[in-house]
Amino acid sequence: MADNEHRGPNRRQLLGTSAAIAGFAGAAGVGAFSGMAAGPARAQGSASGRAEIAPGELDEYYVFVSGGQSGEVRIAGLPSMRELMRIPVFNRDSATGWGQTNESLKVLTEGLLPETKEFLAARGLQTYHNGDTHHPHMSFTDGTYDGRYVFINDKANTRVARIRCDVMKTDKIIELPNQHTVHGLRVQKYPRTGYVFANGEDRVPLTNDGSQLEPDSYQCVFSAIDGDEMKVAWQVLVDGNLDNVDADYQGKYAFATCYNSEEGLTLPDMMSSEQDWIVIFDLARIEQAVANGEAKMINGAPVLDGKHGSRYTRYVPVSNSPHGINTAPDGVHVVVNGKLSPTCTVFDVTKFDALFNDEIEPRDTVVAEPQLGLGPLHTAYDGRGNAYTTLFIDSQVVKWNIEDAKRLYAGEDVDPIIQKLDVQYQPGHNHSSMGQTKEADGQWLISLNKFSKDRFLNVGPLKPENDQLIDISGDEMRIVHDNPTFAEPHDATIIHRSKVNPVHIWDRNDPFFADARRQAEEDGIDLESAADVVRDGNKVRVYMYSVAPTFSLNDFTVQEGDEVTVFVTNMDEVEDVSHGFCIVNYGVNMEVSAQQTASVTFTADRAGVYWYYCPWFCHALHMEMKGRMIVEPRAT
Amino acid sequence: MADNEHRGPNRRQLLGTSAAIAGFAGAAGVGAFSGMAAGPARAQGSASGRAEIAPGELDEYYVFVSGGQSGEVRIAGLPSMRELMRIPVFNRDSATGWGQTNESLKVLTEGLLPETKEFLAARGLQTYHNGDTHHPHMSFTDGTYDGRYVFINDKANTRVARIRCDVMKTDKIIELPNQHTVHGLRVQKYPRTGYVFANGEDRVPLTNDGSQLEPDSYQCVFSAIDGDEMKVAWQVLVDGNLDNVDADYQGKYAFATCYNSEEGLTLPDMMSSEQDWIVIFDLARIEQAVANGEAKMINGAPVLDGKHGSRYTRYVPVSNSPHGINTAPDGVHVVVNGKLSPTCTVFDVTKFDALFNDEIEPRDTVVAEPQLGLGPLHTAYDGRGNAYTTLFIDSQVVKWNIEDAKRLYAGEDVDPIIQKLDVQYQPGHNHSSMGQTKEADGQWLISLNKFSKDRFLNVGPLKPENDQLIDISGDEMRIVHDNPTFAEPHDATIIHRSKVNPVHIWDRNDPFFADARRQAEEDGIDLESAADVVRDGNKVRVYMYSVAPTFSLNDFTVQEGDEVTVFVTNMDEVEDVSHGFCIVNYGVNMEVSAQQTASVTFTADRAGVYWYYCPWFCHALHMEMKGRMIVEPRAT
Repeated sequence: MADNEHRGPNRRQLLGTSAAIAGFAGAAGVGAFSGMAAGPARAQGSASGRAEIAPGELDEYYVFVSGGQSGEVRIAGLPSMRELMRIPVFNRDSATGWGQTNESLKVLTEGLLPETKEFLAARGLQTYHNGDTHHPHMSFTDGTYDGRYVFINDKANTRVARIRCDVMKTDKIIELPNQHTVHGLRVQKYPRTGYVFANGEDRVPLTNDGSQLEPDSYQCVFSAIDGDEMKVAWQVLVDGNLDNVDADYQGKYAFATCYNSEEGLTLPDMMSSEQDWIVIFDLARIEQAVANGEAKMINGAPVLDGKHGSRYTRYVPVSNSPHGINTAPDGVHVVVNGKLSPTCTVFDVTKFDALFNDEIEPRDTVVAEPQLGLGPLHTAYDGRGNAYTTLFIDSQVVKWNIEDAKRLYAGEDVDPIIQKLDVQYQPGHNHSSMGQTKEADGQWLISLNKFSKDRFLNVGPLKPENDQLIDISGDEMRIVHDNPTFAEPHDATIIHRSKVNPVHIWDRNDPFFADARRQAEEDGIDLESAADVVRDGNKVRVYMYSVAPTFSLNDFTVQEGDEVTVFVTNMDEVEDVSHGFCIVNYGVNMEVSAQQTASVTFTADRAGVYWYYCPWFCHALHMEMKGRMIVEPRAT
Repeated sequence: MADNEHRGPNRRQLLGTSAAIAGFAGAAGVGAFSGMAAGPARAQGSASGRAEIAPGELDEYYVFVSGGQSGEVRIAGLPSMRELMRIPVFNRDSATGWGQTNESLKVLTEGLLPETKEFLAARGLQTYHNGDTHHPHMSFTDGTYDGRYVFINDKANTRVARIRCDVMKTDKIIELPNQHTVHGLRVQKYPRTGYVFANGEDRVPLTNDGSQLEPDSYQCVFSAIDGDEMKVAWQVLVDGNLDNVDADYQGKYAFATCYNSEEGLTLPDMMSSEQDWIVIFDLARIEQAVANGEAKMINGAPVLDGKHGSRYTRYVPVSNSPHGINTAPDGVHVVVNGKLSPTCTVFDVTKFDALFNDEIEPRDTVVAEPQLGLGPLHTAYDGRGNAYTTLFIDSQVVKWNIEDAKRLYAGEDVDPIIQKLDVQYQPGHNHSSMGQTKEADGQWLISLNKFSKDRFLNVGPLKPENDQLIDISGDEMRIVHDNPTFAEPHDATIIHRSKVNPVHIWDRNDPFFADARRQAEEDGIDLESAADVVRDGNKVRVYMYSVAPTFSLNDFTVQEGDEVTVFVTNMDEVEDVSHGFCIVNYGVNMEVSAQQTASVTFTADRAGVYWYYCPWFCHALHMEMKGRMIVEPRAT
């Protein structure tokens, strides 16, 4: 068992390539000693009592965590860090039938571009079965979360999804035209969301059908989506590419980092310049131009040219390959994280008006540029004037003071760095409680670490990530919990529970199953009391309701080759009495929670007797909650 | 925010139907007072220090948890209860590409029956995309876990899977012929596994192709699978149906509960008898009969008739609808849990020889039948002579002493019940640390509760389950942690970490990607240094390796309509440096962990420029780890 004894951290040796990167970054100074700058050593062996949630007690915060390559979004509770729910978004989910039920297929298919529908149909698919979620962000009203929606991008297949926070289900997914990948995603903070900003990362031809293949035809696109309508409001072409994005608290600007201003196609080419830039978008000028009909309609979206020299954008140089971009809760400062530079660059958004009016130079918007350590990726805030930046290469979080950084930049002899804390290991995004709103409360910080290595029992070659919880309520940061997570939370938002108010059971008039209500009405069926089989040519619609522990139909009979749609309405009124509907050996399974209607369509292309059952343990007689689908063979 | 304040437990009101079930159970006695029998009230507010795992400390136990309708298996650490890994089994997994890579499709398809392959092909599928896992059990040698495999059933599509515990990947899946659903699954404990026992639950015609549809043609099947070969060793037809199963520590018998001896097709019919039974299988007699050629080959499996009167089986009556069946670590006692009876029935396996030799009556094998409370479902053990039984309707775990129960049954005036503990809410399976082996250590108990209701922040109509951790090391049971889980862990096994020894990185000769090695060899390609595109008619094989932060190919070109197979070999040698391979807007994504080769095949049926990238954050230059697939358009 020596293998599973704790082997102790050796974070400096984790990546054999760190030294090479340090070379790229060009700064040995802070990095080499960063592990020793953390102040008095503090035993990590005693977890904070503040983080302990006793059995039956409720967490203080909801955390919406992206599920990365899993294609889902997760809800965790904080400070316990327990996963409370998985929300299927872009993935095929066996448990709920996401990607199989008619209700989910409508969400997954209606926003796809026609050429994508055709592409998928050639493979016998209605939708993709994978996604890569990165940045979950809740809708805002007046600079803080409003509990309506969470938006999430799909980097894999260039989509943006919206999750309804009353039922915690995805209700809209759109594919973005002209754009290739969506990386950075954030939302308009003021006056409300409003816009969902979605960064195009990779450059390809706008009409990517093979008619153009040469690199000089490649374009990069920035999209603003109307979050209410879930339609592309407008797109802006930019030079370079785009990485992360954020918006101000005034509702005037969005701004994005660019790591490949070189427009390179290989790693060396992407890194050849000493500087890249951020792009600032002037929302009012863009809206005015679109209103004036100055945009070109391309593949259904109004597109403006925002390349160098445009009045819609400004390009501000920063050091090589900036990554995260984060607006501070003071409404003034925006921090751009250096990645390959050991610095963060602090902008003052109140200077952007002058920049767009050509009254100042681009770099005049910079008010600080502290050197923090190796690999700064993202910055979070405590609402008390401090910033917390992840250092990927140093495997640290550095706490620093914004005003002190400004004084240093102005020439004073002051050290803005307050503390460096080792994290385990290689942190990407971080997020503080309410920290991306004007209500940042300075209680908690999560560091989303990409490697866990020796921090958990070994589970084979694929390891979990490690989302560490850090108490930032005091003067000193303290790690209080290691949280292993499946591939791969990129980002998270921590939202006080007062902002989120889900329903307890479904409303029978919920739009999520409006199509089922409409079909039942056409068929003269009352969903709530149905036990009916309606034949319509070779289409058969089977209607049943469920009350634990029975389905209203003990059996139903169809003919081999029929297209069968089963509608199940869960008439239990007690919270948490979810049912499901699973047909054995037919590959059919779906969730039907209390007061919900769900439906699934399939071809009855194997004859015989097939039991259907409730897969959600619902009652002492749950095992007996079943019936038979009898498929009569084709006459031969 | 009143909605999310803790509203306190009201477990008695949870299920409106509890009263009705109590009526079925026919016993008001213990149940009505069970909540008050728990001894001195104990504040649940203070979690046990024993359960606290400080940041960086390792858990003591692995827990393999079924993922229910999610179709997966999960690994958790205990006592922290943190989820350490998801293992895709029957589900389509976006993150790892399970269900899309060639390696996973081989596992998912090669064990399917021919008629199922045909059925799925008609839908354009190679395999099912859903599963319903219930009972994860590790292979045994000499009565305890041996760290080789975990076996798991799929109730939804009648399959059994095997997970390799060195790499924590599913390596074999077979579909069982003749059988409809697999519910109960457990393994042979002695001399080794050996057999995997898989209960048929629902009754259908053996050849279920529509040629017979009438209920009198329905059969129920018990299967024994050779766990080394992953082939059906033999099947036995039984009367009634089968629910859960277990085996003895002598290697002589397997035994299963039956809840529908009536062979009813509706709920009232399934419950009409006062008694059902357990079925005991004599392994030596069955093996001898199969060796003698007495079995009938049906759909490729040797099948024996084990109905009433058979020499292969014995039927022992127990009260209505028994559910769980659990062999005690003493190697002697087997507890059958009453479900609709408030009792458990204790068998003495040393009497089974005499039963099969017709020297005693079936009920002479019963040595105790204590009345425990309403809805006994499953029993776990501490190795100190005590049993812990979940009471679904009472929402309790009852701790009782086996010897005391025997004394009571023998006529002594003794109360075998030691303690009743409220759990939240409606427990199904439970499991104690090492409790299903001869090495039961009496440290921890998990109660897998089907409802969580008000125990966590509300996440909408679909709630998590609640897997509660209970400290059983002292005289009194204490709940120390509430663990929310996604739909729906049915069962779990708690295995000391000394028994499990996964590898840290892949072996380049691993059989999991043997086909890729073979194909590369045929193509004259060295996978470890490949940067090659091999054309073979309209088939194109693209070989590349990866070392963070690059793929060996910056781009590759194919023709529209080509069948493309991409092989990626991860040449990083550092633990935890997983890469992936994702093609934007092509629905292609897969995991490639350190030293692994993975491959995926697709048709290049849309022309244009498509970037591929690494989705596993692997390096400071991870975002730059990408290249282009250029699909040249068909000549028109």
